[in-house]
Amino acid sequence: MSAVVQKYGGTSLADADRIQSVARRVAARRAEGDQLVVVVSAMGDSTDDLIALAYRIAKRPQEREMDVLLSTGEIVSSTLLTMALHEMGYDAVSLTGAQAGIGTDRRYGRARIHSVNPDRIHRELESGRVVIVAGFQGITEEMDVTTLGRGGSNITAIALAAALEAACENYTDVDGVYTADPRIEPNARKLTGISYEEMLELSSSGVRVLQSRSVELASVYNVPILVASSFTEAPGTLIHGGVNMEQRNKVAGIAHDSDVAKITVRGVPDRPGIAATLFEPLAEAGISVDTIVQNASAEGATDLTFTVARADLDKAMELAGPIAKEINARDIVGDRTRAKVSLIGAGMQSAPGYAARMFRTLYEGGINIEMISTSEIRITCIIDEDRVTDAVRALHKAFELEQAE
Amino acid sequence: MSAVVQKYGGTSLADADRIQSVARRVAARRAEGDQLVVVVSAMGDSTDDLIALAYRIAKRPQEREMDVLLSTGEIVSSTLLTMALHEMGYDAVSLTGAQAGIGTDRRYGRARIHSVNPDRIHRELESGRVVIVAGFQGITEEMDVTTLGRGGSNITAIALAAALEAACENYTDVDGVYTADPRIEPNARKLTGISYEEMLELSSSGVRVLQSRSVELASVYNVPILVASSFTEAPGTLIHGGVNMEQRNKVAGIAHDSDVAKITVRGVPDRPGIAATLFEPLAEAGISVDTIVQNASAEGATDLTFTVARADLDKAMELAGPIAKEINARDIVGDRTRAKVSLIGAGMQSAPGYAARMFRTLYEGGINIEMISTSEIRITCIIDEDRVTDAVRALHKAFELEQAE
Repeated sequence: MSAVVQKYGGTSLADADRIQSVARRVAARRAEGDQLVVVVSAMGDSTDDLIALAYRIAKRPQEREMDVLLSTGEIVSSTLLTMALHEMGYDAVSLTGAQAGIGTDRRYGRARIHSVNPDRIHRELESGRVVIVAGFQGITEEMDVTTLGRGGSNITAIALAAALEAACENYTDVDGVYTADPRIEPNARKLTGISYEEMLELSSSGVRVLQSRSVELASVYNVPILVASSFTEAPGTLIHGGVNMEQRNKVAGIAHDSDVAKITVRGVPDRPGIAATLFEPLAEAGISVDTIVQNASAEGATDLTFTVARADLDKAMELAGPIAKEINARDIVGDRTRAKVSLIGAGMQSAPGYAARMFRTLYEGGINIEMISTSEIRITCIIDEDRVTDAVRALHKAFELEQAE
Repeated sequence: MSAVVQKYGGTSLADADRIQSVARRVAARRAEGDQLVVVVSAMGDSTDDLIALAYRIAKRPQEREMDVLLSTGEIVSSTLLTMALHEMGYDAVSLTGAQAGIGTDRRYGRARIHSVNPDRIHRELESGRVVIVAGFQGITEEMDVTTLGRGGSNITAIALAAALEAACENYTDVDGVYTADPRIEPNARKLTGISYEEMLELSSSGVRVLQSRSVELASVYNVPILVASSFTEAPGTLIHGGVNMEQRNKVAGIAHDSDVAKITVRGVPDRPGIAATLFEPLAEAGISVDTIVQNASAEGATDLTFTVARADLDKAMELAGPIAKEINARDIVGDRTRAKVSLIGAGMQSAPGYAARMFRTLYEGGINIEMISTSEIRITCIIDEDRVTDAVRALHKAFELEQAE
């Protein structure tokens, strides 16, 4: 008998009807004979409601208390799903993160799992129960409740799958990983499989299916994750550690992200240490800088351009402005209306010509490339946000992604 | 430095404003220098909301899951009160029942505390923190969450006060124990003190200030409880183990209860075993029978009368009807419109004449007494519910309860 860890997101558990619908799916799977551990997120917007409540009480709620407060959301949904299974005649038991043996460090709000003690889960599984685990939470050695941060329930599911040597299935409101966003490219095709590496690049390039941190964890413990819809029976996408040796298409998919703002420091004197002077204060302020491009120049001055999330633009300009003056740059300009489009595929590293084809495709579409950045398996271009749809469609066609693998 | 356990009920914590108001009271007390442990109930109706949610999912939610679900209500209010204290500059920490060391048996929904391990609380108090404990909940040896049943947060507070050798203060929406219900008798006087014994009789006679179970627990561990309002600064009533040796008034107060239905089985053959035959099925159905009176008769047949809560009348008639036939009783009649009025005072047992004066007072008021039951410190009369107000006022005057102790 093999064990399976399933995870259901908050949208899939938003109300009593949806919880019952998830219970029916869990029951059907249980009826097939697998041992089942189900990790749940909090119902719908309930976490946001708790956060709002805390901010009505305190300007800056303490993180320890916030974690205890937020952990109740997942506990509530875990008990309700368990009750729904009982109602259908299935034996089931809910476990909190602590009861499920999820041990973490003390970094409240963004705790890291340092150990999983699956004894209790094993006992419950052996007595024939479906085990419903409250996701997103753990407990420190001092028995204090912690939460795992954004995507925490996915982390719980992957950690449990690793500890139980079980398969991991992630049910959410998207039904898999596509060659491009289907809302933009109607010909986008759902992938049956994708490697951790490629998924990591997709996640950090704007594809919101699974957070990078979850993919990393799955990759470290080599836990394959099936991403599928909790609302349909359509087959999902398996994120795995293998490589498709004879993959027809070297490009796995196209990612885009419109949450991009660009800052250009113009006329920067060409001397060492300038980049550190500029970026250290941004890092200290918690502003994540994405693509950085520096244009060499013949006249002893260069342009330094980088991108940040749009929400960080004002703060970044505030911090970088005085520094630009200090280092005798000519001026500094911010632009909120950028976007990035990325071509991702593990096969690209062994085959030349992908970058050239990407640039030509965009050129032929009349789309101006403002910045370029690449990794071994990714090519990213920064473009005008108004041209994102055109860029995604043109690239999808050029790389023949609508055709089956 | 002495320790104090305060308890705040759900009405006192119903929204963000009230939580902040409780935080101000706690802070003021902390500023006086006492070590403070604060036990909280769930916010306002939040427990009812969780129960309703469970019943939308399952017809009969499993008790273990219900307990985990409901325990989240007190956890939420404990974290919010803690955040409010932080906001005011006080060091504080919230603890769940488990973290506070409340060990219980496995009787879900009505667990009994079997041990309190106050190590963590001691540690937090010693580091100068106000400790906010989620009431109503505990944990079994197997680390399963339990709830303590109705009035559970009061039980938590008393158990912690006993374990910490601390004073216990119960803040609620009533401001103390009165000689009679002030809504009925405007001259009712708040008592400065009352014995456990008297409070027990008051609680079981219709006074809703503190559940009998809480008073019993306080009595066993000799924990004095101050009952006072969380909304005013008015002094409350101390429920204690002492006796007022020279109490001017032997009567502590008058209780009334309109939730009384009466069942009379008429013409019951006078032979052994009849009472058992009648009451055993009621007990099995969970129907609590209150006053029982059997009138002796000369003709070999008696009338057997007893009272139940009104909500139980139909069920009780349904069960008792066939039995009445079976034992050849003449007939059985139910009456929903009864009430009881009780005179309570520890001093009454050592001084005769109270019963006679009570009966005369009711007689002079033209109030018919249908049943009488007594304990050592209580005399209860069952009367028509329409006469309750008259009875309470007449007795309050006759026993001079408006005068200071």
